[in-house]
Amino acid sequence: MAGYNVAPLSRLVEQFERLPGIGSKTAQRLAYFVLNMPKAQAQEFSRAIIDAHEKIRRCEVCCNFSDEELCPVCRSDRRDSTTVCVVETPRDAVAIEGTGEYRGVYHVLHGVISPLNGIGPDQLTVKELLARLNTGEVTEVIMATNPTVEGEATAMYLSRLLKPLGIRTTRLAYGIPVGGDLEYADDITLARALEGRSEL
Amino acid sequence: MAGYNVAPLSRLVEQFERLPGIGSKTAQRLAYFVLNMPKAQAQEFSRAIIDAHEKIRRCEVCCNFSDEELCPVCRSDRRDSTTVCVVETPRDAVAIEGTGEYRGVYHVLHGVISPLNGIGPDQLTVKELLARLNTGEVTEVIMATNPTVEGEATAMYLSRLLKPLGIRTTRLAYGIPVGGDLEYADDITLARALEGRSEL
Repeated sequence: MAGYNVAPLSRLVEQFERLPGIGSKTAQRLAYFVLNMPKAQAQEFSRAIIDAHEKIRRCEVCCNFSDEELCPVCRSDRRDSTTVCVVETPRDAVAIEGTGEYRGVYHVLHGVISPLNGIGPDQLTVKELLARLNTGEVTEVIMATNPTVEGEATAMYLSRLLKPLGIRTTRLAYGIPVGGDLEYADDITLARALEGRSEL
Repeated sequence: MAGYNVAPLSRLVEQFERLPGIGSKTAQRLAYFVLNMPKAQAQEFSRAIIDAHEKIRRCEVCCNFSDEELCPVCRSDRRDSTTVCVVETPRDAVAIEGTGEYRGVYHVLHGVISPLNGIGPDQLTVKELLARLNTGEVTEVIMATNPTVEGEATAMYLSRLLKPLGIRTTRLAYGIPVGGDLEYADDITLARALEGRSEL
């Protein structure tokens, strides 16, 4: 169908189609929406894409996205820098920030160890993590990788690496999601919830 | 959650949030995806937005989007310019082109008559349609507005306007969608399908 559109429009549709979870119908809808935007708004959108690429770099401490040398969390003096939460992606850090419960700092791996995809510790920010931990300030590392095979393997790998440093290594709790239904929980989650039960 | 993101990233998230059907979680996902694109690809995306705005205008005959004076359909000599299909939006024309069954040309209204939203015939391309029809070349006008109250009202309005010109005015058939289930068809559609029944 895109073939019928005039060239500049097809190109915009194609750009939207490249985005994850956007099919050809949605891409069409978005492209037409952008076309019908006031020109100033379209320019703003276009600019935001370039700006994000040009102005965002990695925080020199935690490797999260940042627009300065240090990210907002690392440069804040209200955060507890003795606790480091290790996450796979910046979005995971955003999710944890969303709880409003975490006062420590982060370390963003930018991926997980995945031999099948050719991703080893060297492709992640493991070196940076070790450098940070060697300063002796950190007392606890919370592994908050995803509960997938690769996420778990990465957490295991890192915890083994940290053992000699004598730093406490913890992991997020597994269990039934709040508001979830026992009946619909999968076996493994249920088994983990039993295993991790606590006193009432 | 966007508050935690660094400024250039939040701005990009906001841009995505403005798009129809994109919620805050999806906007985050798309913004991070764009950030992780190779730089050249991001520049291409940014450029496509600006290009669509700068290079696309309305076809001087049918008012569809075009990158030249005439759109690809109007400038093609393989189309039957005696039949004009009136649609609400360029996307509707794309949908009809998708069937591969239509050989006539289009006329894009760029909306429907909607007194509640302050849209009358003057805000649409009705004037352009009448100018086209007055040349005497057109023998049939197919009303392909959407089967909504406003779409139907617009089709009725136009057909009354065309009556004095002596041009045949038709309308797309209503009925059960192919592959649909009688049981789940709504009453009005079913009534229209009965009304429009044809000989076997």
